[in-house]
Amino acid sequence: MLAYRLIERKRDGGRLEPGEWRALSLAYAAGHVPDYLMAAFLMACFLRGLDREETAALTEAMLASGDRLELSSLGRPRIDKHSTGGVGDKVSLVLAPLISSLGVAVPMMSGRGLAHTGGTLDKLESIPGFRTDLTLAQAKHQLGELSCALIGQTKEIAPVDKKLYALRSATATVESIPLIAASIMSKKLAEGLTGLVLDIKRGSGAFLPELERCLELADVMIKLGADHGCPTIALVTAMDRPLGRACGNALEVEESILTLKGEGPPDLLEVTYALGAEMLVLAGVARDVDAARREMEKSIGTGRAAEQFARIIEAQGGNPGVVEDPAVLPQARECEIFTAPRRGFVARVEPKTIGRGIVALGGGRATMEDQIDPSVGFVITARPGDWVELGEPLATVFAHDRAGVETGRQALRSAIQIADEADPPLPLVSHRVSAAGAARYEVA
Amino acid sequence: MLAYRLIERKRDGGRLEPGEWRALSLAYAAGHVPDYLMAAFLMACFLRGLDREETAALTEAMLASGDRLELSSLGRPRIDKHSTGGVGDKVSLVLAPLISSLGVAVPMMSGRGLAHTGGTLDKLESIPGFRTDLTLAQAKHQLGELSCALIGQTKEIAPVDKKLYALRSATATVESIPLIAASIMSKKLAEGLTGLVLDIKRGSGAFLPELERCLELADVMIKLGADHGCPTIALVTAMDRPLGRACGNALEVEESILTLKGEGPPDLLEVTYALGAEMLVLAGVARDVDAARREMEKSIGTGRAAEQFARIIEAQGGNPGVVEDPAVLPQARECEIFTAPRRGFVARVEPKTIGRGIVALGGGRATMEDQIDPSVGFVITARPGDWVELGEPLATVFAHDRAGVETGRQALRSAIQIADEADPPLPLVSHRVSAAGAARYEVA
Repeated sequence: MLAYRLIERKRDGGRLEPGEWRALSLAYAAGHVPDYLMAAFLMACFLRGLDREETAALTEAMLASGDRLELSSLGRPRIDKHSTGGVGDKVSLVLAPLISSLGVAVPMMSGRGLAHTGGTLDKLESIPGFRTDLTLAQAKHQLGELSCALIGQTKEIAPVDKKLYALRSATATVESIPLIAASIMSKKLAEGLTGLVLDIKRGSGAFLPELERCLELADVMIKLGADHGCPTIALVTAMDRPLGRACGNALEVEESILTLKGEGPPDLLEVTYALGAEMLVLAGVARDVDAARREMEKSIGTGRAAEQFARIIEAQGGNPGVVEDPAVLPQARECEIFTAPRRGFVARVEPKTIGRGIVALGGGRATMEDQIDPSVGFVITARPGDWVELGEPLATVFAHDRAGVETGRQALRSAIQIADEADPPLPLVSHRVSAAGAARYEVA
Repeated sequence: MLAYRLIERKRDGGRLEPGEWRALSLAYAAGHVPDYLMAAFLMACFLRGLDREETAALTEAMLASGDRLELSSLGRPRIDKHSTGGVGDKVSLVLAPLISSLGVAVPMMSGRGLAHTGGTLDKLESIPGFRTDLTLAQAKHQLGELSCALIGQTKEIAPVDKKLYALRSATATVESIPLIAASIMSKKLAEGLTGLVLDIKRGSGAFLPELERCLELADVMIKLGADHGCPTIALVTAMDRPLGRACGNALEVEESILTLKGEGPPDLLEVTYALGAEMLVLAGVARDVDAARREMEKSIGTGRAAEQFARIIEAQGGNPGVVEDPAVLPQARECEIFTAPRRGFVARVEPKTIGRGIVALGGGRATMEDQIDPSVGFVITARPGDWVELGEPLATVFAHDRAGVETGRQALRSAIQIADEADPPLPLVSHRVSAAGAARYEVA
């Protein structure tokens, strides 16, 4: 009757005590509370909300359901970055080697793509041989050797979160700030971090499009981090258009490598530097964001960051030659340039439409069981605000066959809007949120 | 993805089209939509509500999921009565034989007790040999012979409702007016009725205690009935104390038989006559409620009603001798009189506490799998408003053993409150609701 009483109470707008969150979490993990009871409970949570204390108790309960990485013996600061997800967001692939090349351990635990957003694990696995299924012991060993491990949520980490997240995905109960915050933080706090940087995506392609809700989520997560001795900083960044040019698994790996070599698109580089600077300052290896930026530029300029990526790839079973020659990545059989159907300003490059286009091409998942084709996607050179002439190249479609090319062209036709006027896009990095509150982000 | 999209829409306060209710209902019946998706959907329905058109569409979808009793060949009016449930509510046991003795077919489909309310099927099954699991064909045959059949919801009737109701019971999504209305009416409309009378219980022992919500439920159900060509009338009756004196399965059968012989408690008789009069007027066999009441008094006075009960019991495999000699019912091994612990007015006889006391004695169910002991319960002679002296008998506990007697005494101590003053109890029948609206009930 425990679950029934808790469903009833949450349904009526009441709250659960920490011990009740713990008991429910344990009972669900043990299979004593069936999915249908938890689904009703989650919908009540979604519609009634959780207060701060409840969110902390749920986070703690999920964290306590599994193991933690014990990394204090590394003798180095340990910082991770987490993004709420977007289209073309390959920042993790650049930041992990870049920051770990600068004396900071980066124990990066990532997810897979679902619906219109991509996932870091899927992108990494487009590198031939790359394995993301390390055990916690293997990840710890690699962190000692290379200061970086790029892994998925292991069975040992917050298993209740994993089970709950799958149920939330199925039952339309994902987009709840307290449930999101608890889910993310229960995993991140298990990584044994000394600091965490959050990339909160904002705009039409983000799962929380409105700034207010982004700031609320940031605030909840920062407080959860602080409560667990993990200083946390959040930046709010633009997801009203894709980040960078490449959208699709192997294409994004290629663009990440270019970026690590100093040849990446400016928007991707700017977001990467902004988040990386916060990581380096949190780690205490840079005095301020200007100094941090210089360190990062040096690591890229000297080739150290790219070499570090090759080492990580090799350690995880992948072909490190990809860093020198991206042609070792899976290549799409068909590609075709997409040109401007009229002259005018690029008014929108709608990330959701692009993301769904990747799924339609076979490069993303509609369900967690779907296999993906890593080679397909888009490279979009048109940026919102650009002036384009009729017939000017805007993007390239990469597809498995001619039918795929047509599917991709349709997605681009719908996603890229050309008009006589264009509103300015969202600022790339608009807000910085810390324990002291939210402030407009000042470009360094 | 159908279920996901519908959950999402209901979650956000949207509405489903009739075709979507039908599709969801079919998919759930076929097992294509698992319980956890339906549980999330039901909680969203509970918290967001259904409008009138949606309630009608859900009712129709559940009705269409099964068979209907085709009774037009009977050549008689067909009227049923449905109660929202209470403690000591044995009105169905009196009305079915009484009304069917007056030229009206009564195809009465009832439920089992759960939590603090009793169920007509459990009460009937305390009669040795009585079977309630007739098939629709058997029920139809008996209706032809005796104008009455007392059955449970068969597999053939609204199977989706049966499956959904079990899920709602488990997931704290029962007390929703549109879901209740659709559930009741999908079953009642399958009975092939020419009219329906609803007994909407009100007060602390009812599952909708507040008058406003009772009137709302009545209104929704009356409109659903009218839409399906089944004229429906509702009376709002008191459930701030148990109805009659007997509470417990066999004890209530005994009191029903006494009532059919003209020796029942006045409150039970008054509610029975009020509901029965509506049935007879709806059936067109009585001109008005006064004439209807005279017909009922005559059937009881001549012994016709009691004989009809004996015939029904015999037809359904039970021992008809129970009508002459209630001692054939299961008898509790222990009984003890409970006396007033002080002098004063009886301020409350709390029905929920009495109902839970019956469950604690073994005479009710905490889960649908529980076996029940038909012999246990209470006979409570104290009525709210009575003046009682210290040590005066108020009730009798019927239990399986001495421990049960103590359990029963505890329930009575808590349920029966004696004070220096007593507020007047709710009027026994307070409102009459028809398609024309709600009005205060005028005692005939």
